[in-house]
Amino acid sequence: MTLTTKPLPDLLDVVGIGSPLVDVIARADEGLLERLGLIKGAMTLVDLDRAEAIYASMPSSIEVSGGSAANTVAGVAALGGRAGFIGKIAPDAMGDVFTHDITASGVDFEASVHPRTDGGTGRCLVLVTEDAERTMATHLGVANTFAPGDVGHALLERTKVTYLEGYLFDLPPAKEAMRQAISATHGADGSVAMSLSDSFCVERHKSDFLELLNSDLDLLFANEDEAKTLFGVSTLARALDALEETGVLSVVTRGAQGCVVVTPASRIEVPAVPVANVVDTNGAGDLFAAGFLYGLTNGLDPERSAKMAAVCAAEIISHLGARPQGDLRALAEQAGLFDEQGDGPAG
Amino acid sequence: MTLTTKPLPDLLDVVGIGSPLVDVIARADEGLLERLGLIKGAMTLVDLDRAEAIYASMPSSIEVSGGSAANTVAGVAALGGRAGFIGKIAPDAMGDVFTHDITASGVDFEASVHPRTDGGTGRCLVLVTEDAERTMATHLGVANTFAPGDVGHALLERTKVTYLEGYLFDLPPAKEAMRQAISATHGADGSVAMSLSDSFCVERHKSDFLELLNSDLDLLFANEDEAKTLFGVSTLARALDALEETGVLSVVTRGAQGCVVVTPASRIEVPAVPVANVVDTNGAGDLFAAGFLYGLTNGLDPERSAKMAAVCAAEIISHLGARPQGDLRALAEQAGLFDEQGDGPAG
Repeated sequence: MTLTTKPLPDLLDVVGIGSPLVDVIARADEGLLERLGLIKGAMTLVDLDRAEAIYASMPSSIEVSGGSAANTVAGVAALGGRAGFIGKIAPDAMGDVFTHDITASGVDFEASVHPRTDGGTGRCLVLVTEDAERTMATHLGVANTFAPGDVGHALLERTKVTYLEGYLFDLPPAKEAMRQAISATHGADGSVAMSLSDSFCVERHKSDFLELLNSDLDLLFANEDEAKTLFGVSTLARALDALEETGVLSVVTRGAQGCVVVTPASRIEVPAVPVANVVDTNGAGDLFAAGFLYGLTNGLDPERSAKMAAVCAAEIISHLGARPQGDLRALAEQAGLFDEQGDGPAG
Repeated sequence: MTLTTKPLPDLLDVVGIGSPLVDVIARADEGLLERLGLIKGAMTLVDLDRAEAIYASMPSSIEVSGGSAANTVAGVAALGGRAGFIGKIAPDAMGDVFTHDITASGVDFEASVHPRTDGGTGRCLVLVTEDAERTMATHLGVANTFAPGDVGHALLERTKVTYLEGYLFDLPPAKEAMRQAISATHGADGSVAMSLSDSFCVERHKSDFLELLNSDLDLLFANEDEAKTLFGVSTLARALDALEETGVLSVVTRGAQGCVVVTPASRIEVPAVPVANVVDTNGAGDLFAAGFLYGLTNGLDPERSAKMAAVCAAEIISHLGARPQGDLRALAEQAGLFDEQGDGPAG
């Protein structure tokens, strides 16, 4: 991945593009998942009627701003990075909540505001089972109409990295918006990173993702299942070989088993940061990406960036919700990932 | 306190009356409280403009259903008790959230739904400082218009205990509504309990509260500051003496120092349940009341009821938000407060 040489003052480290969502989180038992017909561990898109039926069956919940790429840029900002976000909301209470939270996190939010007629701001119903696994039913609301016209270039022209959530490829007009965002970013000497989001999402868009990987991406995030699904292989080793062949810097996350960074020159294994009490794995991948992107755009090598990523993922899985509650920067400092003055990451 | 002899099938253990609120919770430093002119540890009522200004200054937040009496009845239901709630909401997103959560908790919600023109469903902006103390700014919205017409008698006629939050006395028409609810409860052989809510609230309504205590209440909850403020005394001992003189069963909570149950015959000290990591004291009093009320309405003596209360308070302060996240009933069972069959509390 080639980092930009743009002048510093206006530069952003990371701009995320994704669906703005408010997460509605409740604990649930596996029986409820079965009764609701939801696939454990996966994200299922649902229409408004089904979303309301699921909500009516859910226990007492909490609401926390979410959205995969939005969680990532909120994490970059929490580490002290400069971040932006592009997404589509409605002028309603949940849109206000999303806007408040991402702005209060220090992220520059380029909102495309759409009339409520198309279902309001998106929501993700998150059911957390006792094993801390999360199962999601997302009603995208107005984010469902995300299209090229919703992506301004003001943020993309000044970012070091544009970060795309794979989920967006579920929306045909968003696919075109992503292609244009990639062009705008590369045209302004920025790099493009993407997360594969979910192995079912990879099943749905395998050829698109492979094409992107071979032509447009500078950095790829995937978990083990997603990487295996992408290449249609049954072992991690084969997936890593296939990634290496693409020549794209890739990071494969493996939950409690840490991650593997794949570069054309090497494979680096970095362990996970142990967590005494894993409460909710929602956001683990998003915040892992946050730490890695922050590190890489602030002068850390891939290995130290992966350590930064592991610290962020450990914080997020120790509580309900996919936005940081603890002080990520302080945690990274305690882990020795900032230099002694605390004014920049330690390289 | 005389418990009712009403027939069982339709009977509720506790019906709460209070302002339905959605809590908007963020961590904050003391400097922010100062800049916002909020009194640390207290609840300040704010109009919509001030609520919006405070929200705009708050860090990224989470939303959790709240409201003092509503938290209490949600706790009673979580313990396996039968509970109801009476309050006023607007037909908006936060009203839907409140209704979903209290209903999903198993509470029978008698909602008075008021047009949005008076400001929407109430919100409480909760700022949690590093010492886990919470400071609140409440915009009551439509709950501000709570009046006698909003209190139906269907729930009050079948409850063992009606539980009032002292906060409601901040609204003159609500004061009259409370008096009518007390009459309806007593008229149907139920008992009336009240929480003093906040020492500033006690300052504002001292004479009303003293009059209630001397004529209408069967059970009083107060923390140490509230009890001292009520009687205008400077020591706990004097406040306990004054409570004893009223002849009303009273429980005075003292944070980490436990509580004192004052009956005409005795004073019983019950220690707090130790909590390794106190995160947010919001809801400690509400859930304490839940445990005590559940115990008392299910055959426990005041001492064991206070132990049940301590278990509930300990759960709520170990996470953000004032609604239970853990399984309160299982926690009370682990503490030996249910009999071996688990089908009723151990007396």
